[in-house]
This record gives sequence, C-alpha cells and structure tokens, in this order.
Amino acid sequence: MNQIGIGLLGFGTVGAGVVEGLQKNGSLIARRIGVELVIKRIADLDLESDRGIEVDRSIMTTDAVSVIEDPAVQVVIELIGGTTVAKDLTLRALRLKKPVVTANKALLAEHGDEIFSLAEENQADLYYEASVGGGIPIIRSLREGLVGNHIESIYGILNGTCNYILTRMERDGIPFDDVLKEAQEAGYAEAEPGLDIDGIDTAHKAVILAALAYGFPVAMSDICIEGIRGIDPMDINYAKELGYRIKQLAVIKHVSDAVEVRVHPTLIPINHMLGSVSGVFNAVMANGDIVGETLYYGRGAGREPTASAVISDLADVARNLVFESESRVPPFVAHEHYGKLRSMGDVEARYYFRLSLLDEPGMMARVADILGRHKISIASIVQKESKSGEHVPVIILTHEAVESNFQSALEEMDALKEVGAKTVRYRIEDLA
Amino acid sequence: MNQIGIGLLGFGTVGAGVVEGLQKNGSLIARRIGVELVIKRIADLDLESDRGIEVDRSIMTTDAVSVIEDPAVQVVIELIGGTTVAKDLTLRALRLKKPVVTANKALLAEHGDEIFSLAEENQADLYYEASVGGGIPIIRSLREGLVGNHIESIYGILNGTCNYILTRMERDGIPFDDVLKEAQEAGYAEAEPGLDIDGIDTAHKAVILAALAYGFPVAMSDICIEGIRGIDPMDINYAKELGYRIKQLAVIKHVSDAVEVRVHPTLIPINHMLGSVSGVFNAVMANGDIVGETLYYGRGAGREPTASAVISDLADVARNLVFESESRVPPFVAHEHYGKLRSMGDVEARYYFRLSLLDEPGMMARVADILGRHKISIASIVQKESKSGEHVPVIILTHEAVESNFQSALEEMDALKEVGAKTVRYRIEDLA
Repeated sequence: MNQIGIGLLGFGTVGAGVVEGLQKNGSLIARRIGVELVIKRIADLDLESDRGIEVDRSIMTTDAVSVIEDPAVQVVIELIGGTTVAKDLTLRALRLKKPVVTANKALLAEHGDEIFSLAEENQADLYYEASVGGGIPIIRSLREGLVGNHIESIYGILNGTCNYILTRMERDGIPFDDVLKEAQEAGYAEAEPGLDIDGIDTAHKAVILAALAYGFPVAMSDICIEGIRGIDPMDINYAKELGYRIKQLAVIKHVSDAVEVRVHPTLIPINHMLGSVSGVFNAVMANGDIVGETLYYGRGAGREPTASAVISDLADVARNLVFESESRVPPFVAHEHYGKLRSMGDVEARYYFRLSLLDEPGMMARVADILGRHKISIASIVQKESKSGEHVPVIILTHEAVESNFQSALEEMDALKEVGAKTVRYRIEDLA
Repeated sequence: MNQIGIGLLGFGTVGAGVVEGLQKNGSLIARRIGVELVIKRIADLDLESDRGIEVDRSIMTTDAVSVIEDPAVQVVIELIGGTTVAKDLTLRALRLKKPVVTANKALLAEHGDEIFSLAEENQADLYYEASVGGGIPIIRSLREGLVGNHIESIYGILNGTCNYILTRMERDGIPFDDVLKEAQEAGYAEAEPGLDIDGIDTAHKAVILAALAYGFPVAMSDICIEGIRGIDPMDINYAKELGYRIKQLAVIKHVSDAVEVRVHPTLIPINHMLGSVSGVFNAVMANGDIVGETLYYGRGAGREPTASAVISDLADVARNLVFESESRVPPFVAHEHYGKLRSMGDVEARYYFRLSLLDEPGMMARVADILGRHKISIASIVQKESKSGEHVPVIILTHEAVESNFQSALEEMDALKEVGAKTVRYRIEDLA
C-alpha cells in the first residue's frame, strides 16, 4: 500500500489529537483511502510534556524547518496557530511544493491572499477544513457539495465559547460575568477571552466562508464585528418573550449587487433549527439558489473534532499525491461573481432595541417621531406597567431599516434627556 | 477551458432540474472547478413534453444506448429510476469505462454489489450523492468529511413524504388517511404511496449509508422495515406528553460486534435537533468516534435539491477526468470492520406500547408479570382515569429490552382476554 509521510508542526491539544486519531483509526483509514498516513516528524518547542499518547521521541524536534525540509515529509500539518511563525512555515512548505493542512483561521483570514497565491503558484495543495466549525465538514460541503449553487446566504454559530455563555445565561439566568468566569474555570473560555467574546474568532471564520462562497477576498478590517461582552440577561429574557433567542452569529448574505459580512449578537427565531444549537456546539446554515436551505451541525472546537477535520484533509491530500492530482481543488478560486462588500451603513436589518425611558406623557410620541423621520417603522412594542415618573425599559422591534438611519435615530434618542441610559440594540435575522 | 460532455438518461423532473441548474449556474461552476460541464445528449421516451426549459431538440433521442456510446459523452447521468432498464444502462456505461452519476437509491440498494464491482473492475467512477438525502451532501460528508472516524451510529429522517405526514398529523391533529390524501393531492405523496409510507424508500437509503459507513454489503431482505401506515394520532399525542415525537427513522448502529440496520417509526426526544426536523425536510445525524455528534439537514427530494446533488457529483467526476484520477474515491470500499449485521431479534431497544386493557383489579399486575418474566423493566406508565369495567389505553415505556423478548411478551399480552385490541408498539431512540 502507498504510504504518505506527514510532518506535524505544533504538538499541542489538536496536534496530539491528530496523532491519537491516526493511531486509533489509521488502519481503517488506510483501507478506506488506499493510502497509509504516517507521522514521520513532529516539531514543537516543548519536547517534554506528556500528551497522553505514545510517540517515538526520536521523531520529535524543536526545529520546524528541518521537519518541512525532510524528504520523508510529503505533507505538512500546521497547528502552531497565530500569524507569525505559522505564516513563515506555511509559506516555506508551499515554496517547496509541499501540501499544507492547517486549522489556522487567523492566518487564513488575515493573510489568505498571500498564502492562496503562493499555493497556486507552486501547484501545492492547501486544505483548511479544521479552520471553521471544528469537526463539521462545512468547507468541503460548501466547496464541493454545493458547488452547483449560487450561495444566497450563510448564517453561522461559529464560536463555542460564545454559544456556551449565551446558552447558560438563558437557561440558568446567570449574569454574563459569572458565566464567563465559570467557563474559564471549566476550560471553555480562555484566560484572555477577547478573541472569542469580542467576535474576532467568529469574524475570522466568517471571512473564510465568505471568500470561499463568493470568490473574492474579504478583509477583516472591512467588516462589522461586535461581541457579546456584557450582554444583559434582561435582553435575553425580553428576546425570549418575543420568540427570539440571542446568538453570536456570522451573517454572510448576498443582497442585490453586493455581499454583507458581519458578526454580531443577533436575535433569531427560537423555533428555527439554528435556535436549537446550544452549548459549545456550532452550526452553519447555507442557502443555495438550487438546493435551498441546508444546515451542518457538530462540535466546533476541541482536540478530537478538530483532529477529525485535519485527518479528512490529510486523506484528500494523500489521494492527490497518489493520483498526482495536486491542486485538484484549489484553496481559493477567484470567481468574483458578486465581488463587492456592502458597507455596513447600507445594510438593511430589523432591530431590537431597549430604551430606558422616563414614563411621562408624550415620551413615546417623541421616540416614534425620531424613528419616523429616519424611515424606521415599528413592528412591535413591549412596555411593562410601571410607576409614572420613573425610567422604564421599553422594547421596540422594527421592520427592516437602513443601518445608517438606525444609527442616527439611536443617537437622537440617546440625546433625549428623558432617556436614562445608553440604548441597547441588537439586529434581528428571521432566517426565512 | 476543459470541457466535459454529459449524456443524460431520463429527462423527468430531476433531469430537467439538472439541465436547468447547468444553464443557470454553468459559468459559475466552470470558474469554480476549471471545467465546463456540457449536456451533449439526452435520452427519454418522451420527446414532446414541455419541461419548462429550452433544450436543443436535436440532442434528444429515445435511444439511451446511443447516448452512452456517443464518443462525445464522457459521463453518464442515470435518472431513469427503477432497477431494470436503469441497471442495464448503468452497467453498459461502466463497461465502456464511462463514469456514472446516479440518483437511483433502489438500484444501489438492491444491486449495489454487482454495480460497485463492475465500477471497480473498469476503474470507472460511480457517484451517488443524490441517492440519499436529496440536496444534503451526506454521502460526501460521510465518505470524505468523516473518513477518519469509526461511525458509531447514524440516525436518518430520509423520507420527506413520511415526515410531512407525521408533522401534519402532530401539528394539526389530522388522522393518517386524511393527511395522506391531502399529501397526494399536493404532490407530496405518490398515488401508490407504499414505497414511501411502508418504509421501503427509507430502507433503500439506510442500506446505502450502512454499506458506506461499515464497508460491507447490507441486503434489503436482512433488515427490519416497518412503515407509518395507519399511525394513530392518539400515539402521537401520548408520545408528545412523554416528551417524544414520532419520526420515521433509519437507525444504523454499531453495537459490540455487529451493526444494526432498521427502519421504523421511532419515538425520539422532542428537544433533540432531529426532533425539530419538520415537513418535507430530511436530516441525518452521524456520530463518529473522534468527531462526536454531527448533523446534516436540508431538502430531501424534489427537482432542485436533487439536481444540486447530481451537479456536485458531475463536478467531482469532471475533476477526475481532467486530472486522470478516475476511481480516486471508489463508490464502495470493503473494509468490513464490523462486517456483520445484527439479527433483529437480538436488537436491544426501549419500547413504547399502548395496551387496550380492561380496567379491572389485578390487570396491571398480570401485565407486569409478563414483562418481568421476559426481562423487560418498566420505565414509566401513563393511564388516564376511566370507568371501571371498560377498556382503557395504558401506555408503558420500557427500559432497554431484547427485541425477541419483547416480541414474546407482546404475544402473551395480546392473548389475554382482558386485552381489547392488538397492542400498538414503537421503538424509542434517545439519541444520546
């Protein structure tokens, strides 16, 4: 049987998962694909820690370059993370025409252009199933399964930490800070949680999906990124009363002549399949013009699910090496069918907002007047009974409105002296 | 750009969908895959009907063999259906070493062995994404996305007609016969609905998924197939009270040294993602030993979703032709890891059953005694208040029991003179 030699860069959680996965299921995989996948070299700065698996120490080194250059290594797995060393090593492997399998969403989101070009130039494979949605085969499904479709929209719950926090807040009524602390203790959130809870990680993944679906590069700096930090349980409850659940959502949508890419906490219908995605699970809904609505669900992170995705890419690369069909499925194809990002101000969305309004005669008329002047029409209002002369929460759901108009209206409302606190607002996606 | 010539056999609903899909998105697909997909010939007995799309009449013929043999045809799409003509033509194409794309689940389920062998012998590709789950890329996901996993179980809602009927019965409390009639009028069910409602269609798909996941051929005649015909709204309601929903489910499960494959109406937890799959939608949950739980959801039938799947296979075949990597992904690989089908009598499951029991002192003790002697323990009982001396429905949920034991217990219970009607029973899957 053919054998493919693998060089692994980064022997952390996921790296150990890949080695373990190949130890466990290697013979089954070999029978399935007709090629044996063999880890020939492993590079990591830490040669000592016990990863809970048996590895021949002699294949380990701190010198990643020597792994890439080793003639026994035919494919390189990059699991170092970050955008500095990982980038240099990825580029180095591609220049040697060695295929690379990576889980590095930040690298692809921030330097995809350069990396994809170099892969193309060298006719080297670059596979990245593990970079989005953990074990969910979403890259493969979009790129190959839905290849016949114009993608109309993609909605993704792509960050397990955010989804865990929001699920727990809703289910158990615990405030944001407490859940975050608990998640950190349980290992579901990092000590520095910003990458997750401020939306950066979701945005990295959104940018990768958007580029794949629409065939033009999307820059992180050009998209709207809002996080879930400090979400108030009050809004989770009001949303629920109105039939919605708040999810940290990546929204990628083709509207007329442009593509929207945005990441923010979003009200989605409680009864929708995406609304049922709870805890650390991820899900992606992709709508194609032919296939209609499709949805993919699974564990979005962690040692084993991510390893499963890396192994699926290894299998593809191995087949390509055996059949000499390198670059059979390029990592990125510029088809630029829509080719343009919609600026955030032009986005049309429905809004949920919560005003802290002094309960006085005529106040609601003033709010309604501001909304009307900015072409925002009200879909529903919830105001609980209260004592006159106090600030009360008033929840308003709008029909579709233009983001820049809504933003102006919000500033005007917040400037009213009868508004007691900064107005909280979230966007709504009805997913229909 | 490279061009691949396609011969289409069967110009019905799905065939027209494929032609339309290529007309609509052909240039986008060509940019994505670097190959142009061109319909060169179409065979159908009906050359007259208007399919609602423009087609050059000169490429149409009633002679399917001439299409297969045409040198301009490099890949054959089989959309004739059935297991006679479709089989002959598929074998003929493979013998000419021409790759075949098919949506024909019956053909693969009943003659997979012969077809897969011939494909292997001739190193010809055979792709069948459209045969299971319509537009959902489930074959690709299982075969490639989860290639690194031992599959522990697959649960599938695979027949839109059944799911539509069950959804409508539950939502609107309409009896089975009325919903079936309505579904037939709406085109969701065939005039001869047996293939769907008696479980055959779901079984065809289950057999294909099982063979793919476990690498050994599974015969239709060896598996348990039960349909939804005559399901009583009463049981749908009782199930709901107990937190379950009745779904027509394909259950494929590795247990110790064998694989269970069975198709039957099944109680599944109402809160599970699969429980939320309503109407004509399909979904498949696949559990891998590394990746954990994954789920795939979308439209399971119809012109456009099925066409989307066929086109995805065409793209794969086209790439294989261009890269000369035919049989890169064989249609079936015998890895026989478990290799054995569990006989139905040995299956362990939980059961829901509804007794029609004369409300007399001591009756429940007699039932409990029968269950106890067959090693069946009761998880819960529901009995509504009633007048003494009448037959009342008693609903019992069991813990795990052996099928053959349960069957014997059922016969004993039904032989009691105090049991007024044949006991209704369904299996439960907790999906956890």
